[in-house]
Amino acid sequence: MTRTAERRDALRTTAAQQGLDAVLVTNLLNVRYLTDFTGSNGALLVSTEGWDLFGTDGRYTTQASEQVSGVELVEDRATVAGLAKLAVRRGVGRLGYESHDLTVDGLAALEKVLVEAAHGRTVPELTSARRAVEAQRAIKDEREIELLRQACAVADQALAELAAEGALRPGRTEREVGRELDARMLRLGAEAPSFETIVATGANSAIPHHRPDATELRDGDFLKLDFGATVDGYHSDMTRTVVLGHAADWQREIYELVAASQAAGRAALAVGADVVAVDAAPRQVTVAAGHGEHFPHGLGHGVGLEIHEAPSIGPLGAGTLAAGMAVTVEPGVYLPGHGGVRIEDTLIVTDDAPELLTLTSKELLVL
Amino acid sequence: MTRTAERRDALRTTAAQQGLDAVLVTNLLNVRYLTDFTGSNGALLVSTEGWDLFGTDGRYTTQASEQVSGVELVEDRATVAGLAKLAVRRGVGRLGYESHDLTVDGLAALEKVLVEAAHGRTVPELTSARRAVEAQRAIKDEREIELLRQACAVADQALAELAAEGALRPGRTEREVGRELDARMLRLGAEAPSFETIVATGANSAIPHHRPDATELRDGDFLKLDFGATVDGYHSDMTRTVVLGHAADWQREIYELVAASQAAGRAALAVGADVVAVDAAPRQVTVAAGHGEHFPHGLGHGVGLEIHEAPSIGPLGAGTLAAGMAVTVEPGVYLPGHGGVRIEDTLIVTDDAPELLTLTSKELLVL
Repeated sequence: MTRTAERRDALRTTAAQQGLDAVLVTNLLNVRYLTDFTGSNGALLVSTEGWDLFGTDGRYTTQASEQVSGVELVEDRATVAGLAKLAVRRGVGRLGYESHDLTVDGLAALEKVLVEAAHGRTVPELTSARRAVEAQRAIKDEREIELLRQACAVADQALAELAAEGALRPGRTEREVGRELDARMLRLGAEAPSFETIVATGANSAIPHHRPDATELRDGDFLKLDFGATVDGYHSDMTRTVVLGHAADWQREIYELVAASQAAGRAALAVGADVVAVDAAPRQVTVAAGHGEHFPHGLGHGVGLEIHEAPSIGPLGAGTLAAGMAVTVEPGVYLPGHGGVRIEDTLIVTDDAPELLTLTSKELLVL
Repeated sequence: MTRTAERRDALRTTAAQQGLDAVLVTNLLNVRYLTDFTGSNGALLVSTEGWDLFGTDGRYTTQASEQVSGVELVEDRATVAGLAKLAVRRGVGRLGYESHDLTVDGLAALEKVLVEAAHGRTVPELTSARRAVEAQRAIKDEREIELLRQACAVADQALAELAAEGALRPGRTEREVGRELDARMLRLGAEAPSFETIVATGANSAIPHHRPDATELRDGDFLKLDFGATVDGYHSDMTRTVVLGHAADWQREIYELVAASQAAGRAALAVGADVVAVDAAPRQVTVAAGHGEHFPHGLGHGVGLEIHEAPSIGPLGAGTLAAGMAVTVEPGVYLPGHGGVRIEDTLIVTDDAPELLTLTSKELLVL
């Protein structure tokens, strides 16, 4: 049985448990996860009876026939409508849909198609199957973990090359460094950067998500780099903060504080741990040092086909960690107007110690 | 008055005409268009009384204070909820929202917040303000057109350099060519490719949206390149098809056919023209040649902050063209198993002839 067939069967089981006859999957990444289809327009109907329909438009039929197996292919310009009509024809009574993905207008259009297709017979009843596929996606299989390893390795290697070549030196701009990091990741085999690379130096490093601009790197400043690579759809995420030239005492102090907090966060990653508790341990380290207010974001998040996905590890999160989850641990302390430090790794939760995927050193590097 | 203040005022006028007291903008690109904010979490409340609220979380407050002007800043982890509560407090009675963007779950959460915030008083009435901002965005101003020119120039230049260096030669793989095109665009100042670059050679060129793979370029094959650059958020989009080595008669034939169709499409771009008619003229050229069924997609689409935006130019489109619209014209003829040709430009609709932004030659290039 193929990987995607197993995933569809798992969804089938969830759907049956919820009393659904079929689930309409509209989120494109969920469709990709369940079919391997990588185009920009596609939807999937998974029935509890065992049949699956994949819908796309004429631009993608050849691609779909190559990428997608084990499902019937439906070509229709109006992808979702095409599948909805077939759901009615095949007697689906209770139809699950992705209420966290479908827009209000999308639901209205779907309801209209179902009513029209029913021709006076019983209209399928729509029920939310929210985040059912995302819950599956949170637990990575061996192939997914291998792709995440590769994505992290590309980012590690790109940073190592830039540092070795002296590209992170005073006088260069944030934007130049960001573009070189991106170009290097592409050359090393990434499809794309995982997100818009963050390069923040000096006072800009106190901005958690700073966009690289024309600010020049200067001696004695922090340089914060938050970036990642995408390999076969899977994202890596890493932040390192270095100092240029010479580190002042206050810089060593907050660096050591964030490093201690980050170590506490990694140590808290265990199967069964509550995500709120995982966030609390490293946060307490910053609070005890009087910097609680300078850590204004959650500890981390899942990574995979999306750069941010389940689980969310923060004060507002919910649930527990499970083996096979890929998560980031990324505390930060930001002193507005002065500078900030964030240290972030991507790791896999396991029954033993978590597996560290981002291998670049976390010692304070003075370049 | 700033550019974004003018845009917000235009939305205010639309909202007042629809009898709304305020509009909640949740689509991030619409938020960017109306505020210049480029972060990944933000929402905007535009009131017909004249006040505007911008909401984001703690990661982005510094960035927002630098990028966003003329609106009050609201920091709240739950961005939309924070704005919704203030809407109630300020007496908003009819609240517009983006029903084409907000998910079904998002609407339910919004309704809940409004009811709770009202504390037994009247709950604001939610009304769709669908695609109000997208309608504004379809007409580009001079600055936007200049950014589109730059984005197109980067793509033109990248392709010219690759061709001049002999990088498009037999033996290279689609993936190598795609990565070099991407890296070249970044080096020329693009923030990112506009979308996943399409490089399709030989039989793959018959797949409208083929993903570059390990297929090698070969003498006598078509090579289809569909790509673009992003500059300050604005996307370019261009397709060129060349032949390697020597062009066979059938290749010249379908190339000339698509070129004639594409010229007819460009000629049809006029202020006031119906988008269905604009699509029909070039389509008729392919139908007359017996290749109607081999052109399975619409003629083109708007480009701007998104690679696909309003207007949609195709058999299922609606509306007419207006001066300042940025659109693509991209007919194609694809012969499954053999090869295909697409020729695509990005142009600006004007009161005179359209302005061509993608300047690479459309003569059949034999490399």
